[in-house]
Amino acid sequence: MDMNVAVIGAGMTRFGEFWNMSYRDLITEAGVKTIKDAGIEGTEIEALYVGSMTPGLFIEQEHIGALVADNSGLQGIPATRVEAACASGGLALREAYLSIKAGVADVVVAAGVEKMTDVSVEHATVALAGAGDQEWEAFHGATFPALYALMARRHMIEYGTTEEQMAMVAVKNHHNGSLNPNAQFKRQFKLEDVMSSAPVADPLKLLDCSPITDGAAAVILASEEKAKEMSDNPVWIRGSGQASDTLALHDRKSLCRVESAVRAANTAYKMAGVKAGDIDFAEVHDCFTIAELMAVESLGFCKAGEGGRLTEDGETALEGRIPVNASGGLKAKGHPVGATGVAQAVEATMQLRGDAGKRQVKDAQLGLTHNVGGSGATSVVHVFSREVK
Amino acid sequence: MDMNVAVIGAGMTRFGEFWNMSYRDLITEAGVKTIKDAGIEGTEIEALYVGSMTPGLFIEQEHIGALVADNSGLQGIPATRVEAACASGGLALREAYLSIKAGVADVVVAAGVEKMTDVSVEHATVALAGAGDQEWEAFHGATFPALYALMARRHMIEYGTTEEQMAMVAVKNHHNGSLNPNAQFKRQFKLEDVMSSAPVADPLKLLDCSPITDGAAAVILASEEKAKEMSDNPVWIRGSGQASDTLALHDRKSLCRVESAVRAANTAYKMAGVKAGDIDFAEVHDCFTIAELMAVESLGFCKAGEGGRLTEDGETALEGRIPVNASGGLKAKGHPVGATGVAQAVEATMQLRGDAGKRQVKDAQLGLTHNVGGSGATSVVHVFSREVK
Repeated sequence: MDMNVAVIGAGMTRFGEFWNMSYRDLITEAGVKTIKDAGIEGTEIEALYVGSMTPGLFIEQEHIGALVADNSGLQGIPATRVEAACASGGLALREAYLSIKAGVADVVVAAGVEKMTDVSVEHATVALAGAGDQEWEAFHGATFPALYALMARRHMIEYGTTEEQMAMVAVKNHHNGSLNPNAQFKRQFKLEDVMSSAPVADPLKLLDCSPITDGAAAVILASEEKAKEMSDNPVWIRGSGQASDTLALHDRKSLCRVESAVRAANTAYKMAGVKAGDIDFAEVHDCFTIAELMAVESLGFCKAGEGGRLTEDGETALEGRIPVNASGGLKAKGHPVGATGVAQAVEATMQLRGDAGKRQVKDAQLGLTHNVGGSGATSVVHVFSREVK
Repeated sequence: MDMNVAVIGAGMTRFGEFWNMSYRDLITEAGVKTIKDAGIEGTEIEALYVGSMTPGLFIEQEHIGALVADNSGLQGIPATRVEAACASGGLALREAYLSIKAGVADVVVAAGVEKMTDVSVEHATVALAGAGDQEWEAFHGATFPALYALMARRHMIEYGTTEEQMAMVAVKNHHNGSLNPNAQFKRQFKLEDVMSSAPVADPLKLLDCSPITDGAAAVILASEEKAKEMSDNPVWIRGSGQASDTLALHDRKSLCRVESAVRAANTAYKMAGVKAGDIDFAEVHDCFTIAELMAVESLGFCKAGEGGRLTEDGETALEGRIPVNASGGLKAKGHPVGATGVAQAVEATMQLRGDAGKRQVKDAQLGLTHNVGGSGATSVVHVFSREVK
């Protein structure tokens, strides 16, 4: 299929802990901002996809597609929730994109939302553990910090990656987050702050981990014909890749190479007709600092094992060769799990429009988003461009 | 888009209460049967969609796409869960269909699964209530029997529908179910059995309600080129329609007309180029007997309000003008919520192949499936045919 698809509107809530806002309030605010940003009427929207990880366990509500359509005044249109743990948002983007390519709709919303702070931390930990293998991991106490700690330890053994290099990801992303008005955390940290923060799952410390967050994000996609008619600053989706891997970490060939991300990236690059070296900036899934190091390796920004070096050399900094997580990433912007993949697309859109303010990447022409579910059982990668081809 | 899509394989577990089978066992069994039925290798499958309503609340597991791919030996391929409460299976079918039409895959599995008996009935009731509006319905005690009882009462007031006419749906579907080896209930009931069964939510009685069920189902879809190459008995998907409505019943114009089903049916009929009168049989969403009466009205098999009369006159019986739920329906075959929409497609495939045994509809050329989420906030309708066009 040769039909091109563009982002014609993007919006999100601030990310944070919002005791006075419900799940519905969050998604409605993101939706209204996005429709306003696109400058279209709600009646022009023909379908809706929403990513949400586990509203059943967080707020005892399922049937999320209809809920979001209803609360956004879009009753009647096809409305579908998709889920792949923390990659749910990226899949909403992909399914919205595919529905346009399939020819059944021309203007489609992709949204993501999670309300994580209405339950205890213990309950949230159980809910999030459902992203891994319940029978082989969660049941035995392997929560997500533990799983990523295993990956980090193996990366250290195989490649000599250091705890300081991981901490540098946190320092960089908190710096970027301090420049992002929508970020959960605006505070900057020094290397020694990260290194001396409380241990969570050795070698990961508190400041190596992304937070529990409330938030929502949305983008409006349109076919080429509609995009040119409705928008004067469309951002084009040039490639979309998705892949899976074993649910449990122990079944994989390597603990510290995320095969699904490599596959998803290769698919997206091929579809876009670009190479890793062509990418100007990337929003990657840094749920833990080690995850960003593995991400830049999976995406081909450096060789396997060189993620730590790349970070230490400043190449992923805002002014570096390949800025990673200019938004602050999951680490500082926050990580409302179902919203994250869509918020990455919001950031890519703002960067490519040149609207990213103090965190603007210079001469951004080609951007990438990388969204991961669990410990890598799902990865989804999209390539965005200012040019249609 | 003019690309045609066929079902080239179909399979399901028996539906029932399976104390010795897990969620994983169920979906794996359905998957293996389906691949065997298609006569292909698992390696030929390029993507996977799975419908499941609330595995988070039933088994504390999310990330269902990857789980199913992993347990089916399909690690690596894109694997996506979709959810719209009890319409999750129908949406898996639709998204699989759209992914082929979008040109990103040629051979795609649509699966559905739910394991509902590992929790208490009270817990299951809370989980299922998440299909409705948690804040405006479930929180106040309006469980699903209560919501459908409101719809039934209104149908009785507006159209003179009787409790006996509803009971006739149960009698018919339990008769059909007795002919289906995969059905949860093989027992037949007389009208007086249904009428004298225990009240659940007046006017609905125990035998007006579908059961709590474990089960899984899957179909393999292929593009026209691949279908003709791989299969000598493809069944074609001629139309796909999906629509939404308000999540809460009280927000609708009518309590007893399911607008989303009317819209979804009209979309599917238009895409297929057929009319309601052309359909030879239908599998409809009879979660309660009143739901089947509303379904046959929404689908245009009779006028609004005449569903009771249509049933009483035997027109929806296996030998009638428009056989409805030859499989036994949700009522007798069982209702593992995420699997139901896919199991309907399995039945449509078997009927159109002429493989439905004692419950075979004569001269079945054109069939329809109708899958509903909640009290009608989502409906999805597909039209199947023996002929490609």
